[in-house]
Amino acid sequence: MFEISPTTRLRRSPYFEATVADGVKGFSSYNQMLMPTGYGNPEIEYWRLINGVSQWDVAIERQVEITGPDAGRLAQILTPRDLSTCLVNQGKYVALCNHSGTIINDPILLKLADDRFWFSIADSNILFWARAVAAERNLDVDIIEPDVSPLAVQGPKAEAVVTAIFGNWIRDLKFFWFREAEIEGIPLMVAKSGWSRQGGYELYLMDETRGVDLWNIVREAGRPHDIGPGNPNMCERIESGLLSWGADTDDECNPFEIGLGKYIDQDVDDDVVGIEALRNIAAQGPKRHQLGLKLEGATPMSPHAVWFDVYAHGRKVGDMTNGVWSYRMKQNIGFGLVSTDIEIGQNVEIHKEDGQVISALTCALPFI
Amino acid sequence: MFEISPTTRLRRSPYFEATVADGVKGFSSYNQMLMPTGYGNPEIEYWRLINGVSQWDVAIERQVEITGPDAGRLAQILTPRDLSTCLVNQGKYVALCNHSGTIINDPILLKLADDRFWFSIADSNILFWARAVAAERNLDVDIIEPDVSPLAVQGPKAEAVVTAIFGNWIRDLKFFWFREAEIEGIPLMVAKSGWSRQGGYELYLMDETRGVDLWNIVREAGRPHDIGPGNPNMCERIESGLLSWGADTDDECNPFEIGLGKYIDQDVDDDVVGIEALRNIAAQGPKRHQLGLKLEGATPMSPHAVWFDVYAHGRKVGDMTNGVWSYRMKQNIGFGLVSTDIEIGQNVEIHKEDGQVISALTCALPFI
Repeated sequence: MFEISPTTRLRRSPYFEATVADGVKGFSSYNQMLMPTGYGNPEIEYWRLINGVSQWDVAIERQVEITGPDAGRLAQILTPRDLSTCLVNQGKYVALCNHSGTIINDPILLKLADDRFWFSIADSNILFWARAVAAERNLDVDIIEPDVSPLAVQGPKAEAVVTAIFGNWIRDLKFFWFREAEIEGIPLMVAKSGWSRQGGYELYLMDETRGVDLWNIVREAGRPHDIGPGNPNMCERIESGLLSWGADTDDECNPFEIGLGKYIDQDVDDDVVGIEALRNIAAQGPKRHQLGLKLEGATPMSPHAVWFDVYAHGRKVGDMTNGVWSYRMKQNIGFGLVSTDIEIGQNVEIHKEDGQVISALTCALPFI
Repeated sequence: MFEISPTTRLRRSPYFEATVADGVKGFSSYNQMLMPTGYGNPEIEYWRLINGVSQWDVAIERQVEITGPDAGRLAQILTPRDLSTCLVNQGKYVALCNHSGTIINDPILLKLADDRFWFSIADSNILFWARAVAAERNLDVDIIEPDVSPLAVQGPKAEAVVTAIFGNWIRDLKFFWFREAEIEGIPLMVAKSGWSRQGGYELYLMDETRGVDLWNIVREAGRPHDIGPGNPNMCERIESGLLSWGADTDDECNPFEIGLGKYIDQDVDDDVVGIEALRNIAAQGPKRHQLGLKLEGATPMSPHAVWFDVYAHGRKVGDMTNGVWSYRMKQNIGFGLVSTDIEIGQNVEIHKEDGQVISALTCALPFI
């Protein structure tokens, strides 16, 4: 393992000191911030998410805030999903695309008011992107990265913890909806969301000076439920079929290839960026699709840093974008981004960078 | 120190295996790639750059390639520096700005042909930016990230090493000019450039499968000159007054604040992104400027991860963006991004995040 060097190019989270106090061991970078990646025992952290409750520093989910008279118009222009039915306090998962229909981010869009939106983004620069489109179209908007840093509470016991903090109204929140709240003077938005399929909430902290306070409030409320620190969990997210933009996608990937076609409304406004290209792709059908891969062998694989080649009938048919040892399935699993010639239930070969060849069986997603 | 976790979101350089073989100890991320940050002895690596020759994996300097009938037009639209005199095989340092005049990158622009340009970028997503502007203006261009990965050879003995590889024509290259070349079948561009003030070259490798080969060719050619591995050097670049975009700038920073006003041609085409805002900023004068800071005390400081507050007369007047122990000046030095009320030769206080207060004297840049 290598060290990560301190630099002012990679910003710290408001929860940084709290994660250090809780024993964080490693980081990655995400949206030019440090993202905690583990506290020393991946398996314990995994089972805590599956059976209990876990708290995650996901301040790296930066917000791109759009305000002003044309805010709603710009939000729709950037998003090939029909937003006309989106209500205030509702969130929607959306696939942002460029003019060629390539997916450039897959944020949650939060509608705070008719003239105020957040894109809660994955790991690419949507701040610059949105500003470019807005300025080129002379829209009357302000686009900033506000002081907002989510803390995720995830797992089957998350509801009990978050209810203990905020009250019973938490139980009435619908999936992806959110509400403004305050705890001990800390302003935040509470959303029923999170990058796992185990249920949970994201607390959108709106005062970066109170990160450690909020972390500790969650920890105290979670104590009866044995809460512990964690982070977006590689194993759970692959088992659950959750996409990691930039890790599972490349610069030619469109939403139809990765199971996000249902978020593309082809009859949306013609002004939406990429909609013409997306209609053409939909009409022709995508060239690749994302499948599950179940690998032979009982030796747990480590997270890899490069895509592996997927072969069938002696030729390359695509890539294995990410793989992991599944603690529940007790085998190595991964995502294939492969030719649509490859079907579910087919045998393929994974060619690792080190020359090792592993047999695998394709399957539908999610795994669990 | 913390570990950096492997992920397919952070791409490896074509030189990765070579840097591991040469004992790389740490990484940062830059343009969503792993960037080597040291080989275990910062002081030796520094003096090697100052007195000898050093080879750096700077594949993280990604290229944004613009080709097509409107390539020259788009290059100028993105760049508030007059490119009309830029010749084929010439490079220019440019300050890319958004529509508000904020600097969003400071690449070298390389003109490969009248219809082919590279922006050799700092750490922000100009691929998306350029595509947004091009598509919104209906320009006839292709914009890609090509298979190009620079290897820098830096230091006073760099010329001898690069000449030994390519021949005496190297000595005739002018600053920022470049020429296509080949060595052992490896295609590349050789440019007289690099992110130090010690002289040197950048070899723009154009075949990612040959990274280790090129690394080893440079190492062999450098052996008589005691070449060794290094990376963009924090100490030398601060002594030399070289900007690190994103480390020394924020989301409100314009070129006039950081000494780049000379690269803004105010009478350039009105279609250039941000030119109107830049003219207004120039007319009103910037609110901040970048100065050198010489800190009291003889205890070498470590690279820091957050900006420190700069105080004068009991109030905050700006930030110290980066600081380092200068091996040549034998004191801690840094960059201040401070109110234009603060003049050269003035005493200020640095308030570190841990509460420590250090006296400092402002000075002109570069330090050396």
